[in-house]
Amino acid sequence: MKVQGQHYRTIWLKADDPTTVQIIDQRHLPHLFVIEDIRTVQEMAVAIRDMHVRGAGLIGAAAGFGMYLAALAAPRDDFAASMQAASAHLRATRPTAVNLEWAVSRQLQVLQSAGDDVELAIARLRQEAEAIADEDAEFCRRIGEHGVSLIEAIAGRKNGEPVNILTHCNAGWLAFVDYGTATAPIYAAHDRGIPMHVWVDETRPRNQGARLTAWELGQHGVSHHVIADNVGGHLMQHGMVDLVITGSDRTTYTGDVANKIGTYLKALAARDNDIPFYVALPSSTIDWQKRDGVHEIPIEQRDATEVRTIRGWDGEQLRTVLLTPPHSPAVNYAFDVTPARLVSGLITERGICEASEAGVRRLYPEKFTS
Amino acid sequence: MKVQGQHYRTIWLKADDPTTVQIIDQRHLPHLFVIEDIRTVQEMAVAIRDMHVRGAGLIGAAAGFGMYLAALAAPRDDFAASMQAASAHLRATRPTAVNLEWAVSRQLQVLQSAGDDVELAIARLRQEAEAIADEDAEFCRRIGEHGVSLIEAIAGRKNGEPVNILTHCNAGWLAFVDYGTATAPIYAAHDRGIPMHVWVDETRPRNQGARLTAWELGQHGVSHHVIADNVGGHLMQHGMVDLVITGSDRTTYTGDVANKIGTYLKALAARDNDIPFYVALPSSTIDWQKRDGVHEIPIEQRDATEVRTIRGWDGEQLRTVLLTPPHSPAVNYAFDVTPARLVSGLITERGICEASEAGVRRLYPEKFTS
Repeated sequence: MKVQGQHYRTIWLKADDPTTVQIIDQRHLPHLFVIEDIRTVQEMAVAIRDMHVRGAGLIGAAAGFGMYLAALAAPRDDFAASMQAASAHLRATRPTAVNLEWAVSRQLQVLQSAGDDVELAIARLRQEAEAIADEDAEFCRRIGEHGVSLIEAIAGRKNGEPVNILTHCNAGWLAFVDYGTATAPIYAAHDRGIPMHVWVDETRPRNQGARLTAWELGQHGVSHHVIADNVGGHLMQHGMVDLVITGSDRTTYTGDVANKIGTYLKALAARDNDIPFYVALPSSTIDWQKRDGVHEIPIEQRDATEVRTIRGWDGEQLRTVLLTPPHSPAVNYAFDVTPARLVSGLITERGICEASEAGVRRLYPEKFTS
Repeated sequence: MKVQGQHYRTIWLKADDPTTVQIIDQRHLPHLFVIEDIRTVQEMAVAIRDMHVRGAGLIGAAAGFGMYLAALAAPRDDFAASMQAASAHLRATRPTAVNLEWAVSRQLQVLQSAGDDVELAIARLRQEAEAIADEDAEFCRRIGEHGVSLIEAIAGRKNGEPVNILTHCNAGWLAFVDYGTATAPIYAAHDRGIPMHVWVDETRPRNQGARLTAWELGQHGVSHHVIADNVGGHLMQHGMVDLVITGSDRTTYTGDVANKIGTYLKALAARDNDIPFYVALPSSTIDWQKRDGVHEIPIEQRDATEVRTIRGWDGEQLRTVLLTPPHSPAVNYAFDVTPARLVSGLITERGICEASEAGVRRLYPEKFTS
């Protein structure tokens, strides 16, 4: 998508140096637009763990490129063991992100296909990393094409009034390689001239909504307001939300959705007010092994500092300030699970389905044959 | 309650100067403990509007003292009109707070009782302001005595494991004159040695939980963790919450509860997970005219700056930082309404009742006779 009028993806090989990966260091947004050079798998692991890059699809693409960078630096006499270590290192950075596991496994298969030929392995890992990124962008584009039908249908009933969409966290193009998932239908509708307005949950503690989604939408010219995470229920009670779309970090094959902490609360409010609640996701986010999301999906606990302090722009620089009493501890669960019963449907790259095993099976029958 | 080992209320007449009211300027907590002198009704209106003082009971007490300060300064030849203007000025500061209206009306009746005798009026307004404050503290103490039974019952089932209580915003003693409402049962249980732990919703956008409730509990030695407002649903799904207690800024006589924005979302999560959700309130908070909270209670919209920026301690001073893109607008609804159907019960100074007209009528029959 566009940044300052120029087209960007969120991750790419440096134009004149294909041994360097470039990313947008998202920790500085929306205040500063910083491109970071990543030259080693260790740097990529830090970038994933410390959330220079974040979001389901982008973490997968970053892991794919990370495996390629690992191969470039791996000692030739200890190549296989070194690549195993790199894969373990990458996998440990964000335990809840299913795309991380998926991309690393995909690269390990590529590695195996190259046998003992290290140069072939490097070439194939690079090719596969680029394919993972391209597929991610293409899947998001298709999610937009499918999801826009929901917005069009609502617009048809609103006589020119804007369709009000609420979203949580950033499942925008910054969370993927391009387009995003929750935002893909929004961008597609906007580009078709459908009047729209987006309520952006700020999404504490890391404020991905206030920082990233608001910035993305602003750059693309989509009308929006930032709201505290507490506000959505009130808006829904008063008819100010027509549709909720969120992303998903991991989805069970039965339709339970692990997404940014607080998603579950919005789903409850949508149900209580008869508002459609859709989840947009590429199938790479589906965990084909897990049936019961609430009890089976591990939930990452992050550093309490993310709750106790916050980073913002003081007019001259980014500055961190303390929000709590100095001796009050905090806990920081990063995700929650929204049970399928609260989800109106899943918007995938193959179409929209019911959030249920039957619904998912209809779109992905090949995953259920084994 | 205690601050740095010394007993304080939240508002009082200055010891050696009864023409000055003193308050804790809560905007600086938890980082600085600042006592502010209030000498005029104009200063009191600013203190209420800009939330130097906040919370249902404390706003009422502040309005009571504000009317007294107004009388001290009112021109003798235009006393009645001047007092009417003062009452209008105070009423306009926080439209959702029912205690404000209630305390101002109470002082207007006192004023009437004094006829044309200005000195008598001043004396009676002072006496009444002190009575409003004393009653507020006494009602909160009784709420604690009634509510502690809920905590004791849960503790009896937990074999010495701590009772986990979640609370939203600050319905602590800082929101009243002493004890608080939601916190009164917690302090009472703590003082009886019941093992307890409190999940403190940070309560964006103004972070009254992270700033005030955490500070209060810390000063009193109650074990607690601060959490983002998004976290409560996840904790409830995983058995980590035994009881929710919140306060109320305005309660309909049918049991609908207008409280800090986001309360409704926690009530939905409590219902979805079969967790008791209680609301603690003095009866001064009950609006005897309103039947349908969602549609009849006006919801204050505050300045979007409260969402777009945040204030915290940078290690040396309080500093405000920007959280959103510079051009992204925000909206700031300050309260939401939790329908009575989601409320397990109301804890009042007269006891615990069902959140329904029948329940409220049982405790306050005299309010239903007219």
